[in-house]
Amino acid sequence: MGIEIERKFLVTGDGWRLQAATQTRFSQGYLSRDPARTVRIRIAGDVAFLTIKGLTRGATRAEFEYPVPLADAQALLTMCDGPVVEKVRHLCPHAGMTWEVDEFLGANAGLVLAEIELESEGQSFVPPAWLGAEVTGDGRYVNANLAVRPFTSWVAPSGASGRAETGS
Amino acid sequence: MGIEIERKFLVTGDGWRLQAATQTRFSQGYLSRDPARTVRIRIAGDVAFLTIKGLTRGATRAEFEYPVPLADAQALLTMCDGPVVEKVRHLCPHAGMTWEVDEFLGANAGLVLAEIELESEGQSFVPPAWLGAEVTGDGRYVNANLAVRPFTSWVAPSGASGRAETGS
Repeated sequence: MGIEIERKFLVTGDGWRLQAATQTRFSQGYLSRDPARTVRIRIAGDVAFLTIKGLTRGATRAEFEYPVPLADAQALLTMCDGPVVEKVRHLCPHAGMTWEVDEFLGANAGLVLAEIELESEGQSFVPPAWLGAEVTGDGRYVNANLAVRPFTSWVAPSGASGRAETGS
Repeated sequence: MGIEIERKFLVTGDGWRLQAATQTRFSQGYLSRDPARTVRIRIAGDVAFLTIKGLTRGATRAEFEYPVPLADAQALLTMCDGPVVEKVRHLCPHAGMTWEVDEFLGANAGLVLAEIELESEGQSFVPPAWLGAEVTGDGRYVNANLAVRPFTSWVAPSGASGRAETGS
């Protein structure tokens, strides 16, 4: 068991692409989308994991993760509740920390989210120039919800956009 | 991934106890009770497993099982949907096959079920003398349902009893 402390942000513009060191294609679905006991199956490149998460309190969430055979994961994705979420995860090193920038595909195309994992809720970090509004705790951006209420289905103007508008 | 082909029966009387070779205490709960994607966490003696099952078709069900650390399982049981199901599983060899006789405890006390795992749906077997009515496919006896609608809460007479009545 681990504890996940994570903050999530929108991004502004494409500047993060210059910092992206690695890209990995993710396909993930949910056997349970209940926020008290989310069960996610994820294929990340050519490996796969089963991940169970508990309720989020602040930016903190209990997390259990187990590797599973790729063939199992492919079969489990077909058993999921709702469509599979497809995205590319870019790892962007910045000021001694690593940002995970998720560029969503398919029904969530246009959405880009940046996440950072912290040691404690109060830990400070240097925000990159492309960091937009924080959406930690905003249920719309939870991947389990994006599976069934994808970004492209959101009614505009909803006050929510994947990329914050710039002045130019 | 495996395919589970299982038939489930009530038992009559206590004759099965004479055939019981081993006993293991099971504590199990459900992260998903959705029959299309059941996610079970089970502590069996001093080991633990996470098991995912798909829809049952006839007596057949897709099953994926992974070992997890005991401490993880204990934490995951506290995150489950509904109370934990407690039972003792007795393995009873009979006519070249092994019957699993589950003696339920707690809220399901009084219920005893016998299960046999088969190689194919049509495989024949020699029924032990204590075997009662078949309940394969009867949703009331599914463990994920016994967690939230336990045996002791069933209204009698419901036509369902854990031990079939004998003439004496």
